[in-house]
Amino acid sequence: MKKNGYTVLSVGDELTLGITTDTNSGYICRQLGEIGGTVKRILTVPDRTEDIVEALRLAARDSAFVVMSGGLGPTEDDRTRYALAEFRGQPLRENAALVAEIQKRFDAMNRPMSESNKIQALLPEQAQALPNSCGTAPGICLEHEGTRVFALPGVPREMKAMLEQSVLPALPRADNFLIMKQLHLVGVGESVIGEAIKPLMKQDANPTVGTTVKDSIITVRLVARGSDKDETQALCDAGEKEVRAALGENIFGQDDDTLPGVVVRLLAEKNATIALAESCTGGMIASLLVNIPGASNVLKNGIVSYANEAKTELLGVPAEVIEEHGAVSKEVAILMARNARERARADYSLAVTGIAGPGGGTKDKPVGTVWLAMATPFGVSYLRRNFLADRQGNRVLSANTGLTLLWRELAGLAPPPETQHER
Amino acid sequence: MKKNGYTVLSVGDELTLGITTDTNSGYICRQLGEIGGTVKRILTVPDRTEDIVEALRLAARDSAFVVMSGGLGPTEDDRTRYALAEFRGQPLRENAALVAEIQKRFDAMNRPMSESNKIQALLPEQAQALPNSCGTAPGICLEHEGTRVFALPGVPREMKAMLEQSVLPALPRADNFLIMKQLHLVGVGESVIGEAIKPLMKQDANPTVGTTVKDSIITVRLVARGSDKDETQALCDAGEKEVRAALGENIFGQDDDTLPGVVVRLLAEKNATIALAESCTGGMIASLLVNIPGASNVLKNGIVSYANEAKTELLGVPAEVIEEHGAVSKEVAILMARNARERARADYSLAVTGIAGPGGGTKDKPVGTVWLAMATPFGVSYLRRNFLADRQGNRVLSANTGLTLLWRELAGLAPPPETQHER
Repeated sequence: MKKNGYTVLSVGDELTLGITTDTNSGYICRQLGEIGGTVKRILTVPDRTEDIVEALRLAARDSAFVVMSGGLGPTEDDRTRYALAEFRGQPLRENAALVAEIQKRFDAMNRPMSESNKIQALLPEQAQALPNSCGTAPGICLEHEGTRVFALPGVPREMKAMLEQSVLPALPRADNFLIMKQLHLVGVGESVIGEAIKPLMKQDANPTVGTTVKDSIITVRLVARGSDKDETQALCDAGEKEVRAALGENIFGQDDDTLPGVVVRLLAEKNATIALAESCTGGMIASLLVNIPGASNVLKNGIVSYANEAKTELLGVPAEVIEEHGAVSKEVAILMARNARERARADYSLAVTGIAGPGGGTKDKPVGTVWLAMATPFGVSYLRRNFLADRQGNRVLSANTGLTLLWRELAGLAPPPETQHER
Repeated sequence: MKKNGYTVLSVGDELTLGITTDTNSGYICRQLGEIGGTVKRILTVPDRTEDIVEALRLAARDSAFVVMSGGLGPTEDDRTRYALAEFRGQPLRENAALVAEIQKRFDAMNRPMSESNKIQALLPEQAQALPNSCGTAPGICLEHEGTRVFALPGVPREMKAMLEQSVLPALPRADNFLIMKQLHLVGVGESVIGEAIKPLMKQDANPTVGTTVKDSIITVRLVARGSDKDETQALCDAGEKEVRAALGENIFGQDDDTLPGVVVRLLAEKNATIALAESCTGGMIASLLVNIPGASNVLKNGIVSYANEAKTELLGVPAEVIEEHGAVSKEVAILMARNARERARADYSLAVTGIAGPGGGTKDKPVGTVWLAMATPFGVSYLRRNFLADRQGNRVLSANTGLTLLWRELAGLAPPPETQHER
């Protein structure tokens, strides 16, 4: 089998115990992707020599490169160097230059070097040390049967520096470009999207097209690969054009765009302001908007009226209306929106009232029932949704639905399905 | 080879491209650890049928169980069900009961079911569907040559519910116990904690003790292991006692406790209410509290007064005070707190005003400068902090500092360092 591509290997009990989230692997994958590398798999194994050796053998069956992290420290549970020696079939030898190197680092820190730190100067014969510019553990590089292995420390800062300084420059690139584009959609189901762009989503297409969902935001991701940069970019652009043709109406942004970011930008472009009245979302929408630099220019204020009393006192929703229709009702949502807008003298307002759960549901208004209303200079648009998630999930979905209502209005698009309107 | 232990398998291009950090695998590992399971490896592969099949075969060589997530959606790039069919050597068949089930869910959401959602009703022959209580994609369970595979959706919320409801109850409990205890601290540095419990942090101790930090919340984690459940529990308890003896004053909770959860609980126990006045945090504190079931009993209201106008109109902070001292000042924070409490007729209030960045900093008040004030029946406590994170980080740190101020007051503990007080 011709070897190609990468296996990324992470070592550590804390990872397979699920105590620490592995962010090293993702970082390494991203860096490899940027130089056009294809990651075949990520493997994560505990701090056991035999598990690491098995993982190396598995990776070496088909991968031209293995980039691994973790297990290079000076303590008993750091097994990577022993595993590398066994994998390579060579004994470990103390490298005198490395001992001196490590000694120098401890001198610089004014700390005594302990005997156990010498373990970090042990290398398999014919392996090379990779210098560590921000820690004591050197990395190790060796080649075995056509597979080149780079072993980096597990401490993210040290791993990143060594990857950048010693690994990436040694890897092949340029004749294999990877160009990525992400388009973000909201207000439409993943299956509808899948149907619309099915022809693009074939397994071996170029660009490959995939979708991911998070909190009702769907991201369509195009990844084009090729040996010529311009051609690869053109492939990616062509794919993007097709996706936009099929789904343009639901695309609110691309790459680093976020839904609150787009809403703040559109409001700023219109020189318009907004006020918020939040019950079940309880400040979440305000917080999402405030997280965008420049929100101060568009956000007049936000009222968290989770209690009925607050709806009456701060938003002027008559107690009788709440009594008659319930706090989670079209009538209350509309009044919250109208009054929030008027009282703040804002151009727009958004109001949310719902039953986030776990308690509070009834037969007519089960947990997840949410009414949203948006007041504009031209009246009020409102809609009902029935979410099926847990408390936090229902709140996030409510916030995103509210932001969608705003985004579509500000962008001059048709309102979301089932939106009603009154002057 | 006798099969035993677990392989955890994650599927998704977004993972091997490094776009999304895989949190599912760690969560699954933790849950498996809690029932005494040993995770041999975590494998992560792209959305390609052949890669998934290869991973399943590899796992099936030595693992008694495979718990996988991802690739069960209704779109063309969701390959898990095809891979399972190939791995099992059985064709996919549409399961009529599942179609009805999925149809029911769409009906409940008042949304049309698209043709492609029927893909989610395709199962390999002799496989069982795992019900999905919070999404449309059912899971799949099948057995092949002594290895049992559980395939769960990639959406974390759905994965977690299915793991808890359908997978964990079906797994064997080992006679190898792992008992974990987490203690959560706030308001003290990690190095101080490390120093205080250094004797407990030896490599081969039982329990092992480690710390992790997230957004200024530090978690001390004790993991005890043993073959006898009671003895293991006793070891864990003894370790916990030592940590509490050293650091008790800063421990706000344990295991699933959260800082907002503890604050809501303490307020509820005192039958007390709170009002919020948030500038730079912009609703984040309100949202954190509202996320706790029962928050309706304690949260009177929240005002997001990000704009100066809102501070004046909704909180009665005179424009001249803002003019004289600046919006980010002790004086404004104190007035925000006093007035929020009075106007809401609440027992407590919390006010935050700060410069989250990236712009807006000056020499005297650099980005990250935050004033917090808490009004109580006995006066106002206030403090200044200078955070060094990015916009979102500074806002989260501000929110946690405010909640810490509240927690210590409600728990009858000394206020955080450098807190001042006036009647």
